[in-house]
Amino acid sequence: MTSSQEARAVVLEAFGEPVSTRGLPVPDPGPGAIVATVELAGVCGTDVHLQAGRLPIPLPVVLGHEGVGRVAAIGAGVTDDSLGAPLTAGDLITWGSSISCGDCVYCRDLQEPTLCERRRIYGINRRADEWPYLGGAWAEAIYLHPGSMVVRLESDTPPEAVIALGCAGPTAVHGLLGVAPVAVGETVVVQGAGPVGLATAMYAQLAGAARVVLVGGPASRLERARALGVGDVHLDLDAQGPAERLDAVRSLTGGRGGDLVVEATGVPAAVAEGLDLCRPGGRYLVLGQYTDHGPTPLNPHLVTRKQLRVLGSWAFSQADYAAYLRTVPQLAARFDLPRLLERFPLSDAQGALDAARAGEVGKAVLVPDAA
Amino acid sequence: MTSSQEARAVVLEAFGEPVSTRGLPVPDPGPGAIVATVELAGVCGTDVHLQAGRLPIPLPVVLGHEGVGRVAAIGAGVTDDSLGAPLTAGDLITWGSSISCGDCVYCRDLQEPTLCERRRIYGINRRADEWPYLGGAWAEAIYLHPGSMVVRLESDTPPEAVIALGCAGPTAVHGLLGVAPVAVGETVVVQGAGPVGLATAMYAQLAGAARVVLVGGPASRLERARALGVGDVHLDLDAQGPAERLDAVRSLTGGRGGDLVVEATGVPAAVAEGLDLCRPGGRYLVLGQYTDHGPTPLNPHLVTRKQLRVLGSWAFSQADYAAYLRTVPQLAARFDLPRLLERFPLSDAQGALDAARAGEVGKAVLVPDAA
Amino acid sequence: MTSSQEARAVVLEAFGEPVSTRGLPVPDPGPGAIVATVELAGVCGTDVHLQAGRLPIPLPVVLGHEGVGRVAAIGAGVTDDSLGAPLTAGDLITWGSSISCGDCVYCRDLQEPTLCERRRIYGINRRADEWPYLGGAWAEAIYLHPGSMVVRLESDTPPEAVIALGCAGPTAVHGLLGVAPVAVGETVVVQGAGPVGLATAMYAQLAGAARVVLVGGPASRLERARALGVGDVHLDLDAQGPAERLDAVRSLTGGRGGDLVVEATGVPAAVAEGLDLCRPGGRYLVLGQYTDHGPTPLNPHLVTRKQLRVLGSWAFSQADYAAYLRTVPQLAARFDLPRLLERFPLSDAQGALDAARAGEVGKAVLVPDAA
Amino acid sequence: MTSSQEARAVVLEAFGEPVSTRGLPVPDPGPGAIVATVELAGVCGTDVHLQAGRLPIPLPVVLGHEGVGRVAAIGAGVTDDSLGAPLTAGDLITWGSSISCGDCVYCRDLQEPTLCERRRIYGINRRADEWPYLGGAWAEAIYLHPGSMVVRLESDTPPEAVIALGCAGPTAVHGLLGVAPVAVGETVVVQGAGPVGLATAMYAQLAGAARVVLVGGPASRLERARALGVGDVHLDLDAQGPAERLDAVRSLTGGRGGDLVVEATGVPAAVAEGLDLCRPGGRYLVLGQYTDHGPTPLNPHLVTRKQLRVLGSWAFSQADYAAYLRTVPQLAARFDLPRLLERFPLSDAQGALDAARAGEVGKAVLVPDAA
Repeated sequence: MTSSQEARAVVLEAFGEPVSTRGLPVPDPGPGAIVATVELAGVCGTDVHLQAGRLPIPLPVVLGHEGVGRVAAIGAGVTDDSLGAPLTAGDLITWGSSISCGDCVYCRDLQEPTLCERRRIYGINRRADEWPYLGGAWAEAIYLHPGSMVVRLESDTPPEAVIALGCAGPTAVHGLLGVAPVAVGETVVVQGAGPVGLATAMYAQLAGAARVVLVGGPASRLERARALGVGDVHLDLDAQGPAERLDAVRSLTGGRGGDLVVEATGVPAAVAEGLDLCRPGGRYLVLGQYTDHGPTPLNPHLVTRKQLRVLGSWAFSQADYAAYLRTVPQLAARFDLPRLLERFPLSDAQGALDAARAGEVGKAVLVPDAA
Repeated sequence: MTSSQEARAVVLEAFGEPVSTRGLPVPDPGPGAIVATVELAGVCGTDVHLQAGRLPIPLPVVLGHEGVGRVAAIGAGVTDDSLGAPLTAGDLITWGSSISCGDCVYCRDLQEPTLCERRRIYGINRRADEWPYLGGAWAEAIYLHPGSMVVRLESDTPPEAVIALGCAGPTAVHGLLGVAPVAVGETVVVQGAGPVGLATAMYAQLAGAARVVLVGGPASRLERARALGVGDVHLDLDAQGPAERLDAVRSLTGGRGGDLVVEATGVPAAVAEGLDLCRPGGRYLVLGQYTDHGPTPLNPHLVTRKQLRVLGSWAFSQADYAAYLRTVPQLAARFDLPRLLERFPLSDAQGALDAARAGEVGKAVLVPDAA
Repeated sequence: MTSSQEARAVVLEAFGEPVSTRGLPVPDPGPGAIVATVELAGVCGTDVHLQAGRLPIPLPVVLGHEGVGRVAAIGAGVTDDSLGAPLTAGDLITWGSSISCGDCVYCRDLQEPTLCERRRIYGINRRADEWPYLGGAWAEAIYLHPGSMVVRLESDTPPEAVIALGCAGPTAVHGLLGVAPVAVGETVVVQGAGPVGLATAMYAQLAGAARVVLVGGPASRLERARALGVGDVHLDLDAQGPAERLDAVRSLTGGRGGDLVVEATGVPAAVAEGLDLCRPGGRYLVLGQYTDHGPTPLNPHLVTRKQLRVLGSWAFSQADYAAYLRTVPQLAARFDLPRLLERFPLSDAQGALDAARAGEVGKAVLVPDAA
Repeated sequence: MTSSQEARAVVLEAFGEPVSTRGLPVPDPGPGAIVATVELAGVCGTDVHLQAGRLPIPLPVVLGHEGVGRVAAIGAGVTDDSLGAPLTAGDLITWGSSISCGDCVYCRDLQEPTLCERRRIYGINRRADEWPYLGGAWAEAIYLHPGSMVVRLESDTPPEAVIALGCAGPTAVHGLLGVAPVAVGETVVVQGAGPVGLATAMYAQLAGAARVVLVGGPASRLERARALGVGDVHLDLDAQGPAERLDAVRSLTGGRGGDLVVEATGVPAAVAEGLDLCRPGGRYLVLGQYTDHGPTPLNPHLVTRKQLRVLGSWAFSQADYAAYLRTVPQLAARFDLPRLLERFPLSDAQGALDAARAGEVGKAVLVPDAA
């Protein structure tokens, strides 16, 4: 931080405009709260959508819902992290991006905290012009409210590995470990080679899938996946049409289709293809339809005839983030996660956003102290 | 039967043509087989589709996949029914409509016998011009192959109750008890007031739903449901538009929507409405999309955003038929099932088909010995 | 209350001693809290155990973990009940007996709030000699902390019906609706005709069990169950030995045993019999082993050979209590719940405890304003 | 085979007596049947029990329920293997050890074919003095009845890998993939380092367990496991008492215990320890209690208090065997399976049995043509 009172932060002031960096006050942490300095902050496709004004959020906002940092100041009553490890200033930590209310029907009765309608989300719905100002990770410091999930990182969970998948990691955990678990020996087809697709394919491999078919594009993304050891079969969207892709999947599966197909594209048309790619009796995990593009042509007869289970998965909870962190060592042992990183200084946040939009980097991360 | 050698049977000779009645030879039952005389045979919406040529079946065929009858002759080795009760000539029985192969990936490995691709189905894919000729229930007699599920009816399972729901009964069992079970206290919305909709609503009530909302039409169907005690709230398709129906369901559910919504219409457009009627985190059982009408506009964003489970259910297995028969006494204790029946002589099978097509009867049944 | 400052309360001062009634201060509710006057407070078998000193709790304590009352004073920020209904002074309410921390591994990651190790439980682990004193329902007033589940009772949920099953109701909900759901048409055997056994049998009937076999004693308890319409078959522990009971259950189930057997006795020896009463492939819900009596002879070979699922269920969460309240109207429509009540004035709390210990009443309840 | 009419076979004539080798007629295969020559036949702990007379089987019997061989003669109508691959004489095959009836309540209604009471099991309940004589794999040839699961082995599924785990492989599949699936990131404790324990630990690793704790003895068995890469932590029964083992597991799991504990010992006393080793809310898979040793002291309070799921698993079905074969390539890629083998000629079957009894070999296999 440039002073004990101020931290530089990347602020989205107006939709469609470049982000700007400015100084914001650093409050002392209240009871139960923590102020952390940020070491690495992820840039995610959602940030691109936020800047474009595709989601209804309050402005101005400090962006950044993915972060790793160090405890700078601890509020009264905080002695442990969320998993019970003792916490002191200087500890390396990460935090869950959202705080569910714990009290609504979804949180309490239905045990679906991701559906909580009062979720507070760092970097998304915290105003930068109201106390405590520092509500996102694209800053030198962040204010972590009571109720945040804060986890001290152990040596087997390096910051670079935690941030490499960004929120795609826990999103895949929620979908693949929670909503639609993979059984050992299954064939999993993943539609999409972006961060969510990659993370999903990695977890499918970890879960013992016999074969993971990664369908995506452009070729450079598939190439990156291959280099990391993600996916066993790679189908290039630009090189093959839907019929060829269907043939390819069927020829791998005795003519039947994938046991589990995962949609991780955000493109509505992918859903029609996904229903075709499932075997009779299979599951279709719709993990990526975050944006409302309205209706698209889909054939409901397939759901009845093939007796499919089409399963939606929205966001992730603090529990999913805990599960993600618990499994980062396993991911890191199998895949060279840090290789995905491309670092940008905080002052070039707009450059990082542009790179993320273009899909030309594995994972853009901001390094606040890199200036 | 008119003679010991011949039985009158209703045969579909050509698509789009009226059915005709003719005499067919009655074979002696081979080892493991049974010949039964038919007492009641159901007429189902599928029969209407078969006559219209909407499904690819071999012709000629003796129609009738729903039946109750009496054991006339028993093949070598048959001593018990499929549930272990001793079986002798004269016993009142019913039989499952299909025989799965037991041997394919779906039957053996995936435990989804309804997806078996070699299923033999009485009244649907058994030729009338090949031995053993009598492959459907619209006849004085039927030949039940080895491997058929044959169940002796006890006094708490009267034939009229068994046939009143026809194959809609076990279809609802497969969907509602197998694929998407109801929890006590839930709000269930059923789209469709035809046989499958009625049967589903009945089972939802039996399973302890706090409230069953039946959406259907025309008014006479809802009136019939109301008279039987089926459904707690009835929404008339002709009197209310989709927005009003959505409002009605939401006002009953704290603004959230149904815990479980069941599609039992066969109309593709119902699926778009069904996705709206589900609460976040809810289930949507797609039970009625038997006919391939091709793509229809659906919004996949809802699946992700509301984290829905959209569950297909196809047909029913012998196990489902056993479960159906086991629960007929419970259904019959709660609903006046025989009240649904409208009897037709075998000679007026075409009249029964016409009545079923018009939806003007509760359940058309043929009575072979009524002529 | 005798004055605006004091409320009479039943206090357990020492294990093994009679309870006494004394006045305790009534605090003003802090932010998020509520003070309620108590109208009905249940007496439960656990209270008997608490008095006897069988559970490690702090003393002195105001007993009473089951209650219905009226809002007397509302703390800052409380506008709605836990299900979203507006709340004002004078409203009739009930409240969940426990507050889980929301923050530990069990609450957050494993979604098993009943296993929370920091649960605060009214009437059990709240000291009477520390602010806010009124921590149990056996009093004219109770102080409900922020985080309590408070639900306004609607006209279809009368206080007498809510209290008639006491905590046995939500305990059965947790076990039977959460841990081991009943399928329509199943045979359920319930071991135990006390409150938990009765509540479980009621829910099994609501869930569509074809047959509920209630095993218990003494005869008066079975008689009470029969009079209420609870259970279809009643096996008297005093009249029949284990072998006869096993024969009885087998003869009802084709020789196989119950699909689901529920232990609701608290007697270790019942578990050995329960394993026998399950059919191969069946479930055994161990719902009543609350007290640690140490090891008892059990045959683990049965678990493997019959491929049983032996499922424990501990306590109930706020979500279970919400589910219970949602289904009280269904219970009340089917069973004459208020018939179970036996009222005692607060001043005769010891008499109520004695009656509960003797098992001679359906449900003992204290009526604070009955003095 | 020594002649086209006779095959040498290892026959158990009397309990407690050494096995003997004699010639048995080789029938021509009837319709749907296959005669295969045996290349490798596994020796299993069950064979030791059979010889000792601990299981009620008919005598004389050709032992051997695990085998790999080649198609020698094909009955009418056999064109494909059970998974749909074309089958011709000379093909390398394996076969499932049992044939369930497909027709009883367990097979058809409950989808639990392992509980079928009319199961025919090669090497166990097929008499050697009745047609077709060759009912076990410890012979130069075996007669495979219609209804057998026969699978042609592809190049990624070498015979040595298939036989290395013997029936412990599909037994682990049934338990760990079917009854109690592992989630990625879990801690799994396996009690027992014999074949079932090893196979279970391997599958737990394949399924993404974060940590597999193998508890067993003697030290040589743990050493063998370690050498194969099976298990992450090894607790030696001889070196540590139950309290130390409990401490060890707790210290690895934040004091809570294993998410999943698997009993694979056959020793009743292991069950009491297993209940202690489970974390609250955990699962206990009772996979090894095959022999009825009668009651043993167990504390049912733990099941309620810790809200455990205690899950039995019995044998394996043809579907499990198919799943096993599908995953052998994954096992073989991770573990050096053939290293487990110790070969014996058919003439030294008694020696192989003795070695298996002593637990001094990884996997004893008979090689019929090694003589």
